Amino acid sequence: MMASSTPSSIEHTMLVASEQVPSNITKFKIGLCQLSVTSEKNQNLACARNLIKAAVECGARLVVLPEMWNCPYSNDYFAKFAEDFENEDASPTFSMLSEAACSHGITIVGGSVPESSDGQLYNTSCVFGPDGKLKTKHRKIHLFDIEIPGDITFKESDSFAAGDKPTIVDTDVGRIGIGICHDIRFPELAALYREKGARIICYPGAFNISTGELLWEVMQRARAADNQLFVATCSPSRDSSDSYAIWGHSTLVGPSGEIIATSGHEETVVVAEIDYSKIELQRKGLPLDKQKRADIYLSRWT
Amino acid sequence: MMASSTPSSIEHTMLVASEQVPSNITKFKIGLCQLSVTSEKNQNLACARNLIKAAVECGARLVVLPEMWNCPYSNDYFAKFAEDFENEDASPTFSMLSEAACSHGITIVGGSVPESSDGQLYNTSCVFGPDGKLKTKHRKIHLFDIEIPGDITFKESDSFAAGDKPTIVDTDVGRIGIGICHDIRFPELAALYREKGARIICYPGAFNISTGELLWEVMQRARAADNQLFVATCSPSRDSSDSYAIWGHSTLVGPSGEIIATSGHEETVVVAEIDYSKIELQRKGLPLDKQKRADIYLSRWT
Repeated sequence: MMASSTPSSIEHTMLVASEQVPSNITKFKIGLCQLSVTSEKNQNLACARNLIKAAVECGARLVVLPEMWNCPYSNDYFAKFAEDFENEDASPTFSMLSEAACSHGITIVGGSVPESSDGQLYNTSCVFGPDGKLKTKHRKIHLFDIEIPGDITFKESDSFAAGDKPTIVDTDVGRIGIGICHDIRFPELAALYREKGARIICYPGAFNISTGELLWEVMQRARAADNQLFVATCSPSRDSSDSYAIWGHSTLVGPSGEIIATSGHEETVVVAEIDYSKIELQRKGLPLDKQKRADIYLSRWT
Repeated sequence: MMASSTPSSIEHTMLVASEQVPSNITKFKIGLCQLSVTSEKNQNLACARNLIKAAVECGARLVVLPEMWNCPYSNDYFAKFAEDFENEDASPTFSMLSEAACSHGITIVGGSVPESSDGQLYNTSCVFGPDGKLKTKHRKIHLFDIEIPGDITFKESDSFAAGDKPTIVDTDVGRIGIGICHDIRFPELAALYREKGARIICYPGAFNISTGELLWEVMQRARAADNQLFVATCSPSRDSSDSYAIWGHSTLVGPSGEIIATSGHEETVVVAEIDYSKIELQRKGLPLDKQKRADIYLSRWT
């Protein structure tokens, strides 16, 4: 799974996006759509569309969907539900997200769905701008392969190939880094996003009850506090899948590591305010970035 | 504060320690002495000595003291309470820790105290082995300089110079990485320790009430879970200082990020079991280290 990725691939993503959409927004609302996922794709699309509308009606300009929101989180379903985003017209998921972003004039971080491309499957998040165009897509880098006897066993790499690059995108509401679920377990990715100027990291995720109760909150608060930026997570609701009990608790965390808004495990929309001045205040008062000692940490890689 | 540090300085510390004390221990008890710090150094020494004894009587083979346990946590006291560890006989703190380690036959991570050396002050942790000899010392790398209006202002660099190297030491109870308080805010240091083979990271700390309530637990659980090792923290008790209200809550966290034992804010000794087989179980079931994508993260430093 150690596919190659060069620094130039990151720069490329950033430069293209920067040229398209300069942004000086400082305050806006985010909506996290914690929807119930069924084994009927059309029903999932309709549900997501409704919750996007509900978020917009509460003032959201950035809407985030969960990991695997159009498909049950199970190796039995991923291939059947996969779509090829290169063929936009044949992708109902692509079409719905594009239409929703355009008709509401918002940015959508489209959670994740199974993507089929060149004979491979990927766990992929598509980001759409207010013009309805695809801005970028993130393929989950760290696949969730776990085997803790008596607790949980899952092997995501049975179905998916891993993405091989980080994703940072300049949007109508600022620079965003994207990770999917298990990507949140790797502090190095969040640190990379912070260093490249992300002000929010969005992690669509479907933590299970076991690791969810233990680590879902800790991980998102640590990534936010360590990097002094906003972290937004969005999960399916608990009843989404019989075979994989989901934790829920979609959350917005601020740059001090504080929970700004969160939810239980039922279907819901969390709408909360992101105020970028909190980032400046926090970084000015406690300049973690200046306090870092790269000369010491670098010896890790030698 | 960007003093130079070469990889060789780490290797040196590790190799010297490894030659002295090979260890194959797998299970033992740790004691965290959350003591009340006063403005009387002798009283602090006596209190620490008593709590070390109490921890040993509960079976502890490794005992950790808090940050600044012999001195109030205030820029008004640090210089007055400082000792030069090069002159062992003239250092009552050094003598007490050495005697306690030797007479009980235990390893002591001596929290931290103000050290004077070559005209500088350092916030320094001394580690003693069961023979009473100093094994290594760690000088706090990241000094706590913060200014959040209406919340907290403190400038540790007014008194102290920063250490310039990480500290990993092989002890009677395995390989330990040392950080002091604000050092815990830097995930890169913990990751370095994990990569160099540490199985426990000890962070003596004196988080204040403000950042303590928000982040003390999150930070230690994230460092443990991200690196799949034990994290032990030890704080003074709440009543230790009038000018700086301390959070307390000395804690042992396991390699899944789970809290094994913790305390409130009163003077107490936390004794709990460290079982290294939990590390192997966790790393085998969820091999985060193999799942990492250094090829991607390295672009952060380029």
